[in-house]
Amino acid sequence: METTLHSKTKAVIIGPNQPFVMIGERINPSGRKKLGAEMAAGDFSRVRRDAEIQVAAGAQMLDVNAGVPIADEAALLVSAIREIAEVTDVPLSLDSSVAEALEAALAAYVGKALVNSVTGEDERLEMILPLVKKHGAAVIAMANDETGISMEPEYRLSVARKIVQRAQDYGIPPEDIIIDPLALTIAADPQAVQVTLATMRLIRDELGNNMVCGAGNTSFGLPERSYLTAAFIAMARVCGLTCAIADATNPVIGEMIRAGDVMLGQDEYAANWIARYRARK
Amino acid sequence: METTLHSKTKAVIIGPNQPFVMIGERINPSGRKKLGAEMAAGDFSRVRRDAEIQVAAGAQMLDVNAGVPIADEAALLVSAIREIAEVTDVPLSLDSSVAEALEAALAAYVGKALVNSVTGEDERLEMILPLVKKHGAAVIAMANDETGISMEPEYRLSVARKIVQRAQDYGIPPEDIIIDPLALTIAADPQAVQVTLATMRLIRDELGNNMVCGAGNTSFGLPERSYLTAAFIAMARVCGLTCAIADATNPVIGEMIRAGDVMLGQDEYAANWIARYRARK
Repeated sequence: METTLHSKTKAVIIGPNQPFVMIGERINPSGRKKLGAEMAAGDFSRVRRDAEIQVAAGAQMLDVNAGVPIADEAALLVSAIREIAEVTDVPLSLDSSVAEALEAALAAYVGKALVNSVTGEDERLEMILPLVKKHGAAVIAMANDETGISMEPEYRLSVARKIVQRAQDYGIPPEDIIIDPLALTIAADPQAVQVTLATMRLIRDELGNNMVCGAGNTSFGLPERSYLTAAFIAMARVCGLTCAIADATNPVIGEMIRAGDVMLGQDEYAANWIARYRARK
Repeated sequence: METTLHSKTKAVIIGPNQPFVMIGERINPSGRKKLGAEMAAGDFSRVRRDAEIQVAAGAQMLDVNAGVPIADEAALLVSAIREIAEVTDVPLSLDSSVAEALEAALAAYVGKALVNSVTGEDERLEMILPLVKKHGAAVIAMANDETGISMEPEYRLSVARKIVQRAQDYGIPPEDIIIDPLALTIAADPQAVQVTLATMRLIRDELGNNMVCGAGNTSFGLPERSYLTAAFIAMARVCGLTCAIADATNPVIGEMIRAGDVMLGQDEYAANWIARYRARK
């Protein structure tokens, strides 16, 4: 199954036989007070710079979040999208929990965006899926619901299946649902990643949808996080992960993702790998 | 299934719920002319030093090869084993294609060694398996036979199954057979690693034996090999690889293996990871 996103001029295909897609994660004011204050004041210079840096480092898409407390999130998200479109043409993931912000962003976006995200909660499904359908977007489906986050892979699968079916009722095809099997913090539970990987195998084998993760969650709270996150991504890829929201500028994560492309035959004869090596010399 | 190897004083357990076992690969004169010349001249100082360095870097076992052209391989291998035993107590993998050298080494070794290796060729099986049984050793079973190396995962599985069954005829239990599903060079064939991973999944699901690889083969001929080899190991682990012959002193490979232990819950609450980080600071 392949998911295609596109900006006005550029398409990205996500799929099991495609190079892994990095969705650059830095454009997000949570935990970045300065960025949030600048955005609220109408200064998007840092947003533009971060967008350029992520893309230069290899991000094929960008996640854009404008959740600044008190500010008008819809207006900020629309502004961020327009500013980013001036510096790069990679397709965007529109990241908000506020339906009005998503609606405004989808209306403003030129292309086919990825909506980040919907859960299996009925209320969220009824709010978000009509927007996704109306604007011909794709959407990230989180495998949690009213009951919270289950540690049973079969239950997470059932939530994913419910979202895929409900989306189909709204006329959204399965290839436009990218499932997030939920990556939790290994420091809090030594089984956390095994549960995520088992969920991925089930989703791959039973549903076949593309999958995305906030990969960095797994290493939260530990030192030397890059190696941990990179190891998680490599392992998750052979269980069905086809893209991830990650910081493309992290050299360990970037190299491991590109090395994974070589190993899985998605960078044939290592052409990109060798070209990057030569450019660096 | 768990495989236990031991020296006179130290045991190592290889298994899917154990930390990944690195078998240090540097004690091998192929491609190391100077080392070979020194060994042939009776100078094992570099062998001793390499053994110490590999173990200090995290190798839980050492692969020992004494294949120096013209020299008496059996005598050199026995000497190498004795010299190494004076500097470290990690269990050894005795690496030779010469039955006489393996026989002499097994007779000299105090503990339960890993024999590297036997193939599915009838002649090799009849030569090596009696030695393994006689000395109570374990053995690496390469998934190739008289017909060469198959690119069909099912065929490699059938070779592995044949060796496990033949070993059982000799009274060697399945847990003492560590299967090498064969890792080939991705630069020569973009499907090489996919075939290896598919073979691993079959062997894990159908036979359940531990598996080992010469992981570095996958990145042969390419630049920046550490990331490629490390990505392969991370991916292979979730397909059933439980140990690898690798250079423990390579920082990227070492970190990725330890990060994998954390992610798979084999380093509970990241205790070792955090301890190493603190020691380094």
